Amino acid sequence: MAQGARVEPKILKGFRDYLPDVEAPRLHMLDAVKGVFARFGYGPLQTPAIEYSEILLGKYGDEGDKLLYRFMDNGERDVALRYDLTVPLARVVAQHQNLVMPWRRYQIAPVWRAEKPGKGRFREFMQCDADLIGEPSIRGDAEIMMVGLSVLAALEVPAYVMRVNDRRILDGVLDTVGVEGRDKRLAVLRAVDKLPKIGPDGVRAEIAQATGLADPAIDALFSLLGREVRSDAELAEIGLALVGSEVGKAGVESLRELLRILDAAGFGKSVGVDLTIARGLDYYTSTIYETFLVGHESYGSVMSGGRYDGLMDMFQAKPTGSPAVGISLGVDRLLSALLDLGLVAVATAPADAFFCLFDAGDYPHVAAVANQLRAEGVRIECALSAGKLGKQFQLATRKGYRWALLQGVDERSRGEVVVKDLVAGTQEVLSLAAIGEWKGRLTGR
Amino acid sequence: MAQGARVEPKILKGFRDYLPDVEAPRLHMLDAVKGVFARFGYGPLQTPAIEYSEILLGKYGDEGDKLLYRFMDNGERDVALRYDLTVPLARVVAQHQNLVMPWRRYQIAPVWRAEKPGKGRFREFMQCDADLIGEPSIRGDAEIMMVGLSVLAALEVPAYVMRVNDRRILDGVLDTVGVEGRDKRLAVLRAVDKLPKIGPDGVRAEIAQATGLADPAIDALFSLLGREVRSDAELAEIGLALVGSEVGKAGVESLRELLRILDAAGFGKSVGVDLTIARGLDYYTSTIYETFLVGHESYGSVMSGGRYDGLMDMFQAKPTGSPAVGISLGVDRLLSALLDLGLVAVATAPADAFFCLFDAGDYPHVAAVANQLRAEGVRIECALSAGKLGKQFQLATRKGYRWALLQGVDERSRGEVVVKDLVAGTQEVLSLAAIGEWKGRLTGR
Repeated sequence: MAQGARVEPKILKGFRDYLPDVEAPRLHMLDAVKGVFARFGYGPLQTPAIEYSEILLGKYGDEGDKLLYRFMDNGERDVALRYDLTVPLARVVAQHQNLVMPWRRYQIAPVWRAEKPGKGRFREFMQCDADLIGEPSIRGDAEIMMVGLSVLAALEVPAYVMRVNDRRILDGVLDTVGVEGRDKRLAVLRAVDKLPKIGPDGVRAEIAQATGLADPAIDALFSLLGREVRSDAELAEIGLALVGSEVGKAGVESLRELLRILDAAGFGKSVGVDLTIARGLDYYTSTIYETFLVGHESYGSVMSGGRYDGLMDMFQAKPTGSPAVGISLGVDRLLSALLDLGLVAVATAPADAFFCLFDAGDYPHVAAVANQLRAEGVRIECALSAGKLGKQFQLATRKGYRWALLQGVDERSRGEVVVKDLVAGTQEVLSLAAIGEWKGRLTGR
Repeated sequence: MAQGARVEPKILKGFRDYLPDVEAPRLHMLDAVKGVFARFGYGPLQTPAIEYSEILLGKYGDEGDKLLYRFMDNGERDVALRYDLTVPLARVVAQHQNLVMPWRRYQIAPVWRAEKPGKGRFREFMQCDADLIGEPSIRGDAEIMMVGLSVLAALEVPAYVMRVNDRRILDGVLDTVGVEGRDKRLAVLRAVDKLPKIGPDGVRAEIAQATGLADPAIDALFSLLGREVRSDAELAEIGLALVGSEVGKAGVESLRELLRILDAAGFGKSVGVDLTIARGLDYYTSTIYETFLVGHESYGSVMSGGRYDGLMDMFQAKPTGSPAVGISLGVDRLLSALLDLGLVAVATAPADAFFCLFDAGDYPHVAAVANQLRAEGVRIECALSAGKLGKQFQLATRKGYRWALLQGVDERSRGEVVVKDLVAGTQEVLSLAAIGEWKGRLTGR
């Protein structure tokens, strides 16, 4: 590695380094997520960061195409960095015709979008998706929602609600109110999707501008979408209000069935109907959901998804309307919420305890004892330079440690170790033979 | 997500998809590695995939510069995908002057190199590095070697040896034999590094060609490097043979000290001196090591590294010769060896058991029982479409399951579940209240 003229060390705008204080709890969180996925039989998939551009182009709209990190590689191939995990999934499904359906996979990986960076908006960010491919029944929707809700339970999030809707109910409402034409209908859905951000007046204004819909029709729209639905009976009433729309009624019946399953399986209290949930993406075909931290809705949805039958066909020679339903966890958003709410702590020290070094000659003995503790699951950082104990305690404290360990010649001969509490200023001499009894004090477990 | 003309689903040459059968054991292996790093107080770092090109250029030699995935981004910035984890580490160290030294970090992340793809050579591959920054003492070298050896122990690799050398001993040998000039000396080291690949005759020919060294000098070189060193006394003899080279003698004394520490700390039997270990990279300054699976040396080194004092200064305003020592695990090479040797198994089924569905109406009850089992750590895939039991057993078998679960109305009323062994063809009715007693049979734990 040659060393040329010195270059200013800097990082690209919209990109981040994760140092261990944040990366450690982040990995811990992702481990919990992976554990839940695995317990539901979802297997991990990994795909390349780089794809042929033609695989990605045209899948995210004109705006998305412009945001691709696209370039010619050294072999003059037109390539791009992955933009999401859904298109690579469709490619994998098309290339591996031997997958046994229904197929459950999760993928946790960074994606790249050349967006204007801003508060909480980055050009490289982690996506965390679980998808169930090939299952048409409403039980698939129920399962993937249970996966998501179980993730939040595993992360010990105290209060959350998954707000669910069915795209077909929105279609029924649009039918009933009389919004016609695909573009206008999508414009209404996109406006409704912005409700938490721009409020009802903002949504009304946007709908009026995009569709030319008259005020009474907009009133009708809002009176339908704004209904509180707290029971199966109230949901059934929505069905009656959409009596002229077959698709709308089908959406209501499907949502009723979904809620009955979630209730019976014990997830009812974490789920609520919200007819204003629209999801911006136009590929959803029925069930859609977003998830909010109760009392902290301003973080936005931390977990969203829905059913998107047909989308997986994009690379298939013979489109079959393949069923698919998925959920995506907003890892960075959720982590920042959990950190703010004190539910996850930034790592202060790199390990559980700091093993001091009296004398460089002691190091092999210290290393052997440290390895004995490590074998018991205690994380130990060893001092490698000898020095005055006071200085070593200072260093340990600066590094964020509460516990310092030492072993003098006497302790060594007796198979003991001194455990010092740097916060309380107290210390005890403990037997290594009885590690099992006191290691929990160091690990907090 | 619009759907344009159909595109052939394909992946770039030199890139791979990891499907769950391989990705699951791979993640399991990486988890074990992370666990060892954490127990030694090494914290996780994550850096962006994309860096300014000037950060990476000139650090890997002319050849390396050509292998960069380099392009202009949408803002006309000259950027490149990371080529290794060492240069990003040096950037982070230079940008964060408040890191408390010595600083221990690991990073597990893909890197990209536009190399000619070939057997076992990919353009995207995972690197897994642990480095100790800011510790000049030989105890740092010892610690990082113990980290590496503990990783192999944690992975239950049955027999391995870390072969260690000191770059200064090689320098002493070159001094003693009379090879002068940096280029010639590096050429000799690079030739020696190829010993396992091209054999002694190949190395001799390459040295003769690159340096014009006469046969007697090459003989002298080989008689020094080829010595078996099985004890401290034999190592001391090497010191005597290098009596005219201060740097050579210093290398011998340092290596003796290192081996004394590793011996005393209980790692002696996994370490051996090998004076032919040269490492191709010219940034190593003293200790260097490679690790081989005993009896399976043909996989090459699965874990290598060394001390590279000064390299971390590349972005520093004031170079201080900052001490650094590190180790890099060859994740993909090790995984393929472990799979070949049967020490790690490809995942056959996505979960521990497959829960059958008699009747769609039973699903909420099945889901509730499955969640009860999941809470106990049993991974359960639920059938979502009802069907004849025979067909469901077939599906479970096709998916690789040994265990199928069912619950009829009778079992449900008694809080029981039927556990069927699809391999043996036997079944038992077990009480859900006693999950703790039989769940181990399903999980194999």
